[in-house]
Amino acid sequence: MISAGATLRTMRERKPLVHQITNYVVMNETANATLALGALPVMAHAGEEVEEMARLASSLVLNIGTLSTHWVEAMLLAGGTASARQIPVVLDPVGAGATELRTSTSRRILDIVGVTVLRGNAGEVATLAGADAEVRGVESIAAGIEGAELARAAARRLGVIASVTGAVDHVSDGERVLAVSNGHALLSTVTGTGCMSSAITGCFLAAKPDEPLEAAAEALAAFGVAAEAAAEGAAGPGTFHARLYDELYALDPDTLDARTRIEEL
Amino acid sequence: MISAGATLRTMRERKPLVHQITNYVVMNETANATLALGALPVMAHAGEEVEEMARLASSLVLNIGTLSTHWVEAMLLAGGTASARQIPVVLDPVGAGATELRTSTSRRILDIVGVTVLRGNAGEVATLAGADAEVRGVESIAAGIEGAELARAAARRLGVIASVTGAVDHVSDGERVLAVSNGHALLSTVTGTGCMSSAITGCFLAAKPDEPLEAAAEALAAFGVAAEAAAEGAAGPGTFHARLYDELYALDPDTLDARTRIEEL
Amino acid sequence: MISAGATLRTMRERKPLVHQITNYVVMNETANATLALGALPVMAHAGEEVEEMARLASSLVLNIGTLSTHWVEAMLLAGGTASARQIPVVLDPVGAGATELRTSTSRRILDIVGVTVLRGNAGEVATLAGADAEVRGVESIAAGIEGAELARAAARRLGVIASVTGAVDHVSDGERVLAVSNGHALLSTVTGTGCMSSAITGCFLAAKPDEPLEAAAEALAAFGVAAEAAAEGAAGPGTFHARLYDELYALDPDTLDARTRIEEL
Repeated sequence: MISAGATLRTMRERKPLVHQITNYVVMNETANATLALGALPVMAHAGEEVEEMARLASSLVLNIGTLSTHWVEAMLLAGGTASARQIPVVLDPVGAGATELRTSTSRRILDIVGVTVLRGNAGEVATLAGADAEVRGVESIAAGIEGAELARAAARRLGVIASVTGAVDHVSDGERVLAVSNGHALLSTVTGTGCMSSAITGCFLAAKPDEPLEAAAEALAAFGVAAEAAAEGAAGPGTFHARLYDELYALDPDTLDARTRIEEL
Repeated sequence: MISAGATLRTMRERKPLVHQITNYVVMNETANATLALGALPVMAHAGEEVEEMARLASSLVLNIGTLSTHWVEAMLLAGGTASARQIPVVLDPVGAGATELRTSTSRRILDIVGVTVLRGNAGEVATLAGADAEVRGVESIAAGIEGAELARAAARRLGVIASVTGAVDHVSDGERVLAVSNGHALLSTVTGTGCMSSAITGCFLAAKPDEPLEAAAEALAAFGVAAEAAAEGAAGPGTFHARLYDELYALDPDTLDARTRIEEL
Repeated sequence: MISAGATLRTMRERKPLVHQITNYVVMNETANATLALGALPVMAHAGEEVEEMARLASSLVLNIGTLSTHWVEAMLLAGGTASARQIPVVLDPVGAGATELRTSTSRRILDIVGVTVLRGNAGEVATLAGADAEVRGVESIAAGIEGAELARAAARRLGVIASVTGAVDHVSDGERVLAVSNGHALLSTVTGTGCMSSAITGCFLAAKPDEPLEAAAEALAAFGVAAEAAAEGAAGPGTFHARLYDELYALDPDTLDARTRIEEL
């Protein structure tokens, strides 16, 4: 059953630890989004400790935004532990399609780790699903196929929940497709908001691990609702960014449910 | 003598250089807190340059929040230089107790470097002091002994000033215990505020190196007073975070002294 | 012809990709400044992908603020690709003069890469130009010669456009000198504003690659005009920082031209 509010309530009660191996650009931002929402972030990337940390966590978020070799190895180690423990794993394939390293690393993680949710933009997901796509930097260019179809095809091809974000987000397990139309245009003016949505997906999965399709859609709805509220009274990207944490923190479960716009296609 | 205002005044006159080897998540935040307060931050972690940089600095802050092997080596090199020069060294053992790497690295730094102040939460400090403690991620869980006793015991056992932060902070040199009750609950909703308190401790120690117990307590009082002011008018974690730098910058020495709540137990 | 507004308009139309290999402290900040202005940031530093990424970019920004060895190699690789493609390269020699590693790395980049604009403070630029200078941490100490002369001398000596920022900025190609007097004192209370000015220089060069002297001066004027607007209504460094992105985003080309204070000396 879809209820972002109910999942948020569970999250705030359990305060799950969300282990994030993410990029340098957004570490502070994803940790703050996690904390504002009511979960506990932990950032650890050393090969010597990632397995131990992943054993303490309720979910794992892997983000390849600023890759280097030893970070990839750490992601695989942490991912292996997470898979063995059957905790949810989110992969954010930042820039897949832009360079060979990013594409091949994403594929390697998908092959080796039991990824629960692949959260990316249309270009990134299309690259990994094998569809024709062009990716320019970390910003997506239209993938040539509709978001809903892309999500469904990627989910089937890759054996994951595909969470394709854009003006409207599409989340699919290969059969069902949920469309999430919460959000605000200002999100695209702040770096790392995609990465934040992946971290928040990790938080929701930690609170609702048995219904990952619903949890992934609820996460995007919650982030979108917070963004809508943050945009009111924001003067631009900077004040919007600060207000985004205020609104994640202030999210009220009932209000969230009332504002959630998730539609099953 | 305790006067956070007097130490702040000295700091702003001397503008000490505070060398920080810290974690990726909070680098921007601790640099901004240092700068807003009136000291000069410098971040440098390459083995090739840390000794040279530590020779220019008035204090050194080591923070193990996102460890990897070559960073540990750099911390030991910089710490060696700082010890030889007898400038104050602050250690923030982020996550000690959560993983073996973090616990053993903290111990190694405590063994090799002349640490002046160990600034952590109850769980981290208890782990290092040998008391029974459970640490969950980077958030502390009650250590089972009272903060004042923990600070005193840790200071004696480890030969440092122990600065244990929480709802009330306790700072001890093993004999005296200073309790600092400034602060605000919103601090726990923003990542890196513990790390900021360590950086600010480094700033105060640089301005008052001969009275490290007092300086460490004053640092927490100053940060707490700024947080109290920042909370007024903040709508949540995001605007609180932005306002925190405003209030560190705006700290008036006399007002600070009037609002300081430091009690000798 | 100097028109920051016209260059900004071109930038927003073309949305150039600006590849940044920069320091950990400011990555989020320079990415957000780039995005707020209307260009697209991409951060990538792995040796395996920097050449590929530099081939997609319209300009490259190298910033040595938190150096380590493999980052230097990546900067040289990316710089080589950028030089071969004749796209503009900006070098920000953070802390040159403070440590041997920073000075020698800056010199190595200047020797090997075709640097278009060297953007630093007086101390950093004087160190590299060979003038007597003292650099204290990452903050500049007066270089003993006037900014305009320093910029001209550095440009001649190093074969670059020298962009020396301070209370008044001086940009020179070795012949002409442009003085930019936009800006605000609050810029020096936020870490990474120098790094942001380098990133913004990269954005302007991407939009006006054939007139790098003018583009470099326009970039500083645009950043300064945004800072002036951000300072209005800011309560201190934190709210100023948030408002800075609002104002970069809100920059109107015509208003920008009206407020630009660039003077040819």
